Amino acid sequence: MHTHFQTTQSHADPDVIDFGAGHPGDALLPLTLMQAAAAQRLALPDASLLQYGLEQGDGYFRHALAAFLSRRYAAPIDMDHLFVSSGASQALDLICTLYTQPGDVIFVEEPTYFLALRIFADHRLKVTPIATDAQGLDIDALEAALANQRPKLLYIIPTHQNPSGATLPLERRQRLVALSMQHNFLIVADEVYHLLSYAAAPPPALATFADSGTVLGLGSFSKILAPGLRLGWVQAAPQHMTRLYTSGLLDSGGGLNPFTSALVRVVLEEGWEDAYLDKLHATYRQRIAALDAALQAELGDRVHYLTPAGGYFFWLRLPDALDSETLLQRAAAYKVSFRPGVRFSGCGGLRNYMRLSFAFYEDAQLREGVRRLRTALDSLPASV
Amino acid sequence: MHTHFQTTQSHADPDVIDFGAGHPGDALLPLTLMQAAAAQRLALPDASLLQYGLEQGDGYFRHALAAFLSRRYAAPIDMDHLFVSSGASQALDLICTLYTQPGDVIFVEEPTYFLALRIFADHRLKVTPIATDAQGLDIDALEAALANQRPKLLYIIPTHQNPSGATLPLERRQRLVALSMQHNFLIVADEVYHLLSYAAAPPPALATFADSGTVLGLGSFSKILAPGLRLGWVQAAPQHMTRLYTSGLLDSGGGLNPFTSALVRVVLEEGWEDAYLDKLHATYRQRIAALDAALQAELGDRVHYLTPAGGYFFWLRLPDALDSETLLQRAAAYKVSFRPGVRFSGCGGLRNYMRLSFAFYEDAQLREGVRRLRTALDSLPASV
Repeated sequence: MHTHFQTTQSHADPDVIDFGAGHPGDALLPLTLMQAAAAQRLALPDASLLQYGLEQGDGYFRHALAAFLSRRYAAPIDMDHLFVSSGASQALDLICTLYTQPGDVIFVEEPTYFLALRIFADHRLKVTPIATDAQGLDIDALEAALANQRPKLLYIIPTHQNPSGATLPLERRQRLVALSMQHNFLIVADEVYHLLSYAAAPPPALATFADSGTVLGLGSFSKILAPGLRLGWVQAAPQHMTRLYTSGLLDSGGGLNPFTSALVRVVLEEGWEDAYLDKLHATYRQRIAALDAALQAELGDRVHYLTPAGGYFFWLRLPDALDSETLLQRAAAYKVSFRPGVRFSGCGGLRNYMRLSFAFYEDAQLREGVRRLRTALDSLPASV
Repeated sequence: MHTHFQTTQSHADPDVIDFGAGHPGDALLPLTLMQAAAAQRLALPDASLLQYGLEQGDGYFRHALAAFLSRRYAAPIDMDHLFVSSGASQALDLICTLYTQPGDVIFVEEPTYFLALRIFADHRLKVTPIATDAQGLDIDALEAALANQRPKLLYIIPTHQNPSGATLPLERRQRLVALSMQHNFLIVADEVYHLLSYAAAPPPALATFADSGTVLGLGSFSKILAPGLRLGWVQAAPQHMTRLYTSGLLDSGGGLNPFTSALVRVVLEEGWEDAYLDKLHATYRQRIAALDAALQAELGDRVHYLTPAGGYFFWLRLPDALDSETLLQRAAAYKVSFRPGVRFSGCGGLRNYMRLSFAFYEDAQLREGVRRLRTALDSLPASV
């Protein structure tokens, strides 16, 4: 075995509790399940999963995915409105290539997922942040912005938002879709946390409004099965399906993930995905309770937040005068880390916010991490 | 089982012999080998292949790939100069996003791979075709074009070209690299057929000139293992590695193929790739002989071509007055198909050429296909 070179994305010091890690820990990943799926599928005398696949994605897989989503979204999903991607990031990148040009204006939420901003930067798009509140995108603020600017698309994380955890209510979803039709812009809805709802069912996925012709809904197995599979989907109206699967990338390379989608088809058809998702829900529900209790006990009214009802994140507001990047620097000495709020801002704001993920660590580590955070906070001069 | 919807890329009538199919038939694909690799890897208590992977690609995989390439290229390859892609098409798409803007001029060979032209069209690039001859790109023609135009990049298939089968000699490779440095353009070398050399060793891969800083070499497991894995690599100088793995797509999604690259690592480390490649060479060598003999017997001096020494394709020149699209329409009635030359032209030319792939069919079908082609040709009016 070779251990003298870096092998995984995790660059972290194992002694540090990094609340920045927005992915599950190894113990939570479905290794045994994928072993069983691979054994079952690869024993079949059918090599089609090794061929260039159908550009839209394997039909059997899309059929199984449509059945799964119809059940989980409690809405009928047509397999012909699903396009198989190699993850939400790849889908977002492809949409930027096909639907935008450098210099185009796009709207994002303030705050938004900071790595989406990196993809938009590579496509040289001009990003305008739109205000949000505890219920997600502020539709009045959107309407005001539309009076001055005509965006090509709006990128939104409508359910259990990253980082804020906010979920857009049905009435705002309806107004948003109406505005997109009226002002002729696309809604790219990153709904990767939609199926990670631990309490009440969320409002209908924005993807279920795809008949409007203005909505492209992005889903991913990264959050509900395993990031390393690089498997996701786009749900949209037929004209967008055609645009995606007749692109040069698809025409040349064939389907984006024939091999892993064939294995995940087994996971879906055998009902293993439902069972695994139930396990994730139970685990994350418990971690939220642990982190919530620790934050109350250690930090009390020094932080404010809404306890998340889904997704991966707590979004904490600190006292106005406190810059979370200052706290982050101090936190290094106490072996704890997190993502400072400014990373999620489209305009350099949100300096008194911080994002904590509860997906990576078990309860005891979450509690220890909060203790370290409190110690780091206590060590700051009283003036900040 | 559901059979009422389309499931794979193969839209073909099974009764048609389609020389257009540029991929191996199912029987040639390494299903048993991938079954063994998955069983071995997924039995290990190591879930790292299910995580977001290192952006540049898993280190163990790149280590194994560098060892394999060093042996097969007979040149030392540094694992830090390898970036893991999800196939050559995806790599080409990413390079277009990061290195070009709509309206930029790029140079391609005339003829070139027609689906690469589709990717360039999605990025709204202006394509200038440069002449080739039996030894590939005409460097004098390139030099003349450089006097008038400044391309962002040149896209070239230097070894066993698709469609022509031509291989660029060492002296032309050296002149090409020197010109790229002098005129400051990138060479994107699509070298997916380099390891499919059935006779003498080809000249050094263009990727081995990466120290120039102007060459990005694209490789892929699609041609040497299985297209459905969606696994390839870019070999380039460190500054290009950094540009690729710090892009928004990678920063957000992590490595492009952690799961399948972990399985293919087993294939490489166990020496199975070498054995499989030897089998491919023997098979394709035999198919070339079969197709060559059939063409001589059935079509004689009605077609002209150089017998390929590698890759997948015969590139046939028909009589000047014959348009291969006319022949293609006629061929449908005789249950045979191919790719007409005009598809590979950047300027609507090459109408008296046709491309035949020998990768998909076994010897007897190749012979039968040529008989059908001859009958189709015989059925055309004498004037064409």
